[in-house]
Parts: sequence; C-alpha cells; structure tokens
Amino acid sequence: MRPQDVIRKKRDGRSLSREEIDFFVGGVTNGRIADYQVSALLMAIYLNGMDQYEQQILTEAMLRSGNILDFSDIPKPKADKHSTGGVGDKTSIIIAPLVAACGVCVPMISGRGLGHTGGTLDKLESIPGYNVNLSATEFKQVLQDVGYAMAGQTAELAPADKKMYALRDATSTVEAIPLIVASIISKKGAAGLDAMIIDVKVGNGAFMREESRAKDLAHALVSTGNSCGIKTRALLTDMNQPLGSAVGNSLEVKECVEILRGEASEGATPVTELSLELSAHMLVLANVDDTIEAARARLRGVLRSGGALECLRRNIVAQGGEPRVCDDPGSFLPLVRESVKVESPRSGYIISVDTTEIGFAIAAIGGGRVRIEDTIDPTVGFISERKLGDQVQGGKTLGVVYCADEGAAKEAAERIRAAYQISDEPPAQVEQLVKEIVNE
Amino acid sequence: MRPQDVIRKKRDGRSLSREEIDFFVGGVTNGRIADYQVSALLMAIYLNGMDQYEQQILTEAMLRSGNILDFSDIPKPKADKHSTGGVGDKTSIIIAPLVAACGVCVPMISGRGLGHTGGTLDKLESIPGYNVNLSATEFKQVLQDVGYAMAGQTAELAPADKKMYALRDATSTVEAIPLIVASIISKKGAAGLDAMIIDVKVGNGAFMREESRAKDLAHALVSTGNSCGIKTRALLTDMNQPLGSAVGNSLEVKECVEILRGEASEGATPVTELSLELSAHMLVLANVDDTIEAARARLRGVLRSGGALECLRRNIVAQGGEPRVCDDPGSFLPLVRESVKVESPRSGYIISVDTTEIGFAIAAIGGGRVRIEDTIDPTVGFISERKLGDQVQGGKTLGVVYCADEGAAKEAAERIRAAYQISDEPPAQVEQLVKEIVNE
Repeated sequence: MRPQDVIRKKRDGRSLSREEIDFFVGGVTNGRIADYQVSALLMAIYLNGMDQYEQQILTEAMLRSGNILDFSDIPKPKADKHSTGGVGDKTSIIIAPLVAACGVCVPMISGRGLGHTGGTLDKLESIPGYNVNLSATEFKQVLQDVGYAMAGQTAELAPADKKMYALRDATSTVEAIPLIVASIISKKGAAGLDAMIIDVKVGNGAFMREESRAKDLAHALVSTGNSCGIKTRALLTDMNQPLGSAVGNSLEVKECVEILRGEASEGATPVTELSLELSAHMLVLANVDDTIEAARARLRGVLRSGGALECLRRNIVAQGGEPRVCDDPGSFLPLVRESVKVESPRSGYIISVDTTEIGFAIAAIGGGRVRIEDTIDPTVGFISERKLGDQVQGGKTLGVVYCADEGAAKEAAERIRAAYQISDEPPAQVEQLVKEIVNE
Repeated sequence: MRPQDVIRKKRDGRSLSREEIDFFVGGVTNGRIADYQVSALLMAIYLNGMDQYEQQILTEAMLRSGNILDFSDIPKPKADKHSTGGVGDKTSIIIAPLVAACGVCVPMISGRGLGHTGGTLDKLESIPGYNVNLSATEFKQVLQDVGYAMAGQTAELAPADKKMYALRDATSTVEAIPLIVASIISKKGAAGLDAMIIDVKVGNGAFMREESRAKDLAHALVSTGNSCGIKTRALLTDMNQPLGSAVGNSLEVKECVEILRGEASEGATPVTELSLELSAHMLVLANVDDTIEAARARLRGVLRSGGALECLRRNIVAQGGEPRVCDDPGSFLPLVRESVKVESPRSGYIISVDTTEIGFAIAAIGGGRVRIEDTIDPTVGFISERKLGDQVQGGKTLGVVYCADEGAAKEAAERIRAAYQISDEPPAQVEQLVKEIVNE
C-alpha cells in the first residue's frame, strides 16, 4: 500500500477501508508517512468528508495509536466532559469536583487556549503552584486520592492525534467534522472512560456558528463515542455571549471558586446552571442516578454542603497548588486592580455581542494565545456586567477590562465596546442556554 | 499574511489574489512555507480549482521563481514543443532537429519517464555518451552551435515548479489542470521561448483519458501560454495505442533515426506524420512560414535532403554522444536479440489496446520507472506490429518484446497480449491521429 493511493481514493470521494485507515494512522504515528502526505489527506477529508464507518475506524485507529490508561482497579464509574470551546467557558473546573464529590472518577485530559477561546490548563495554571504536567502514574495517584485529576495530553496518549492536530492547525483543516470527532473521541477513549458528556457550543463565539453544523457534529460525536464503547451524550449550548461574567484565566478561576463557595454574582448564574446540567447528565450516564432530576438534586446537595469545594481543595493540594485559593480567591490568585470600564455607546437593548471579538480582544493583550508560542498573563481579563437582552443607558458600564498595562486595557476596552450592538428595540428572542440534548 | 489563511481561502473555494499567490510561490521557493502547507494547498487547488486569472498569476510566479534563460543574442526565433506524455511518444527527438534545420532555435527542456510513460531524457541517454545534464552555459553553447539543445530542468530554472512537482507526485495532486498548466508553462517560459506547440494526448494511454478534460487542458495551456507572452497552440492527438511501433528507450531512438534517415518501417508512419504536423505548426508560430502547407513542404525538404539527420548528428556530437548512431542505429545503440513474440489469442479485428498497460508492462521489466528511484535498462522494449483496426489471425504476431531476461520478457509479453482486445467485427471507427487544433 502506498500513501498516495490512499490520498487518491479520498481525493476522488471514495470511502477508505479499515486497512487503508489503519495504514495511514500507523504511518502518522511511526513517522513513516511524510507530513506533506498527511496534510494532503487531511485536506481531502476536509473537502470530501468521511462516512460514519470511516469516522469510527479513524477514531479507533487514533485511540489505539498510543497507550490506553487503565483505571480498572479504581472501583468507580469513569466519566468526563468535553467542550468544543468558547469564551468564558470554565465549566470543567466546576464539573470535575462536583461530579467527583458524587462518587464518579473523572480523569480529565484538557487542552490549552488558542485563538479566541480559553483552555482549562491555562486557567488552572493561574492557581499558584498548580501542576498540569502529570505523568501517567501521578495522574492515576491523584485520581485515586481525590476522585478527579486534570492534566494535558501526554506524548504517549493518542500520539497520532497530537501529530495530526498540529498539522490541522497549520493547514486550515481544523473544522472538518470527522477530524474533530476522531480527535476528541480518541483522546477520551485512551483515558479509559465509561461515559462522556459533550458540550457542543453553537453561536458567534463557537467554532461552529451554524446550528445545523453544530448538530451534525453532536450526532457524529455521540454515535462515534458510543461505537467506541463510551456511553456518550451531547448538549447543544448557546455561545452567543461569554458564558457567565468572567473572561480571562485568574478571573475565571475566581468565578469558579465563588460558585463552589455559593458566593457567586448573579452574572455567574449561567455557568452554575450549565455546570449542573452537564454534571447531571454525567451522573445519569455513569449510572449514579436514574433521572436527571435526581442527579440535579444530588449535585445541589454537594454544592450546598461544601463537598464539591472540599474536592477542589484536595485536588489543588494533590496537584501542588495553593489551597487557600479556595478560601479567599481574591487574595491568592494573581489579579490586578488596574482596570478600564467598557461604556455603552448609547441607550437601548443589547441585541448582539460579537463573542469571538471579545475573546480575541482579551487574547491580544495577554489573556490568551493569538499564536501558539505566545505566553499568557493570568491577570488579564474582562468581567461582563450585562447580558443579551439587557436594557442599558448610554455611558453606563457594560463591563470592565483588567490589565496592568493601561494602554493595552484601553485598546481591549475599545474593541469590546464595538463588539456590543445596542438597539432601540429589544431582541426578538434570546437563545436558550441549553438548546438541545443529542442522545444518538 | 499566513500560509494557513491562503489555504483556508482556497479550501473555501474562493479565488486567490496576486499577493496571496506570490506569497505562496515565494515561500515554496525559499523554503519558508512548510511542505505540509504546500501539499494542503495543492489538494485544495486540486479539488476546488483555479480560475483563468489565478492560473496565469500562478504560472508567472513560478516562472519568475528562478533564473530566466536569455537567448536574445541568438538571432533566431525560439520555439519548443511539449507533450503531456504517452506510450511510444518519441516526437521530440525528431522535431528538434527537423525544426532546427529550418532555422528555428529550439531550447528543449525535457523530463524523465515515470509510470507508464517514457521520458525524452531517458531515451536520449540510450545513445552512448550522450549528456543531458548541461549547465546553462553549456546549454546555450550547444544551442548556438547546433540550433537545438536538449537537457533536464536545472535547479535554477523554475525551482518552485521542481519542488511542487515532487510534492504533487507524492500526494496524488498531479492531474489538476491549473497545476499542470503552471508547471508546463513556467518551465517553458523560463527557457525564453517565443512560440510553443503543445501535444495534448487523449486516450487510454494518456493522463487525460476523456476528450472533454483534455480539451479543457488544451485551452487552459494555450490561453496561459499566450498570456505569458509565448505564442501557443495545442494539438489534441490520439493516444489509444502506442505511437508508432517502438516502445522502450533504445528502440525508440532507433525508430527516430530510421525516420530521419528515410528508412522507417510502415509502422512508424504515425510518428513521422505527427512529428511533421507539430513541426509545421511550430514554423508557422515562429513566423518562418505563413501557412501550414508551406511549412510542411519545407520540413519534407529537410527530411529528404538529410538536413535534419545532419542536425541530429551535430547535436549528438555537441552533447558528447556517439554520432555513428546516425549511420547505423542497429549497431551503435544498446539493443538485445533476446525476444518473445506476443501472439494473437484469436482471429479477428483489433478493436482496442490498453495502452497504459503496455507502458506499465515494459516499465515493470526495466524499460521505465515504476518508482522514481528505479534505474532504466535501455535495451528493454516492445515493437508493435499491428495497429487498431487491423485484421489478425489467431497465433500470429502482434508484436515482439525485447529483454535479456527471458522470464521477464515472457511476463511482459503475457501482459501485453492481454492488453489487446480482438473482436469478430472491425471497430466502428478508428480515432484520427490529430483530433483538434486549439488556438485559444
């Protein structure tokens, strides 16, 4: 078999066989197939697609390309959550302790932020001392001791995905559904999961802006996840404004701690709601509860009792971080006082927010990565004080940009101000936070 | 500008600007754009195409990517021929001396054989001592002294094409019309031509099997060539059987010399006809003659007088080869006596010949390259004795395979025998050798 024959077949729109996909993924993993051949195939897949069978074979091949973590001696169901990414999307940091406090083992492999979206690993690293670079042994130890662990993808876990992801990023082939599906499910499958909930973001701050494409992705993820032996469900959720009030690494961790402490502002409510909803589905998929209602009640219990906060504290200790962040996040997280207000240019109703633009405005001043090699300033961020549909007065505050560099802060504030569209009439409708549940 | 943004634009089916194409070709040439990004763009171009303007910009950028040969001090019109490649297609070796003998300067940059097709450079190298690796200075000297020179593409000539061609071959993106056009015209343009005739092969031995695709290619070549300032015309010619009787390096050179000596077998007639026709168009495009009829008469003159043969002899001497090949090709070319007959499996009419299969059968036993790194045995080849439409008796000879290894010869003979389809009824029609002349 020759790589160019496999490329030709996909180029011509035909379906690849198991042998061809295995050959290709094997060659990507051991480096025998050149990067330029891999990227040509990726573009052919992007433009000509893959059917459900090919997608599943690709996922399985990538899953098996490296080590598979074995947690079978931990006598608990294993479940995880994955989000396709958005702005202010910090639910992982809340869900992991919530669900772990309910007796589920959560081996969470997370990623870095890139472009307008944030990444869980970057957020966690704003906790002083917190270590996300765990070996497989360390990861398992934390999981056993605390009930959840959070770390980056190691070189041993789905190495084919790691290599292909880097090529996709450099060749504009990231957004292809079969490639997204294979990337997500192969990593999750290699972490030995029983159940998985996927938060598929849709809207102007998501990678999928159109609901129909987001739905296609959700269905593909669910069916491929289930085919790989992971009980999988997806929630289609709104990303037409930042989720909650905080955008930026320290500020988002602060919001999470406040939620787990029961001290969050009203602006954080959607984060709490969505975290509870995703967690409830995880408990049901993991057979902890029979119904979503029962799961919600259980989760509200561990939230109210401080059980989830206690779980977070134990995880921070186990991963080398400063546990007093749980007691006084405002004092122990790296934050700055320097701030610039974003003022409403006129009176009226907020009818749209360019969410991607807000993400980029904060990334550009150090709150994220515009380029993969950029370093992050955890103190930089934005607190939004108004939501879609809110009525505002001209000159009143829409939110606040935090950044030690005043010039940079002003620049970001101006970009964010321009991202808000204010109208005399209220919006015809404001999207539901959870738009749809996809079970198959 | 970032490579991935250019890739994304073409991926989404949009037209690239001059700046974007120049940026990309520049990056290919200086190595600043990674091979995996180049190949992703090549696949996007393959699948989404390029409009006429993009194709022209791409060609110009590739043409300017290296040195441009300057023959302005040679006081003759400069013209060349290019063929898209076929089986037994040896017209370059006849046309160059024919046209040069009529006072046209022919700077011919040729290629190697790959797959089922032969290459002019490989054929020429079967002449003992013949050197196709000329420096720019040597090339010009031969051109001045003889009137024509034949060499391979140097690293300085259209280097972007050289790099892209290697990637296209490895990523199954060879057959894209805009890429074929840019590759051919950029090389020819860099050789400083005034006029060019292109032989676009169509049929089961050509890269373009469908006439409509071949026509599209011919039109794209002609319009892009003209846009680059080269008077360009294309002939659509039949490649549904080997051209002439010889397939294989030494045997083809022998056939060429016999034609120039006026001693060719009847089987060689189509080669003579096509060579004269392509040459006649070159003379008209180069303003040597006003009409095709006048050009044909002039060419028949230099063929009959031995002027063209004399020109071949002088070229062989100038490029270090054995000139006695012109006097007695059977004795001075590397040939073998060992042969196996290909016998007709039944009586009837030849209604089709799988020409690509014949090319591969000969390549597989050393007459060509199945892989780019294969070495060629110049002695290996096939002489076809029958043409499409001929009536044959069962057991009679269709042709003869020459190869020192009897087992290999038998293997090739069996493949070739199976490539002939014999029927009780004669074919409904036999294709014209020259099917169409494309002027714009």
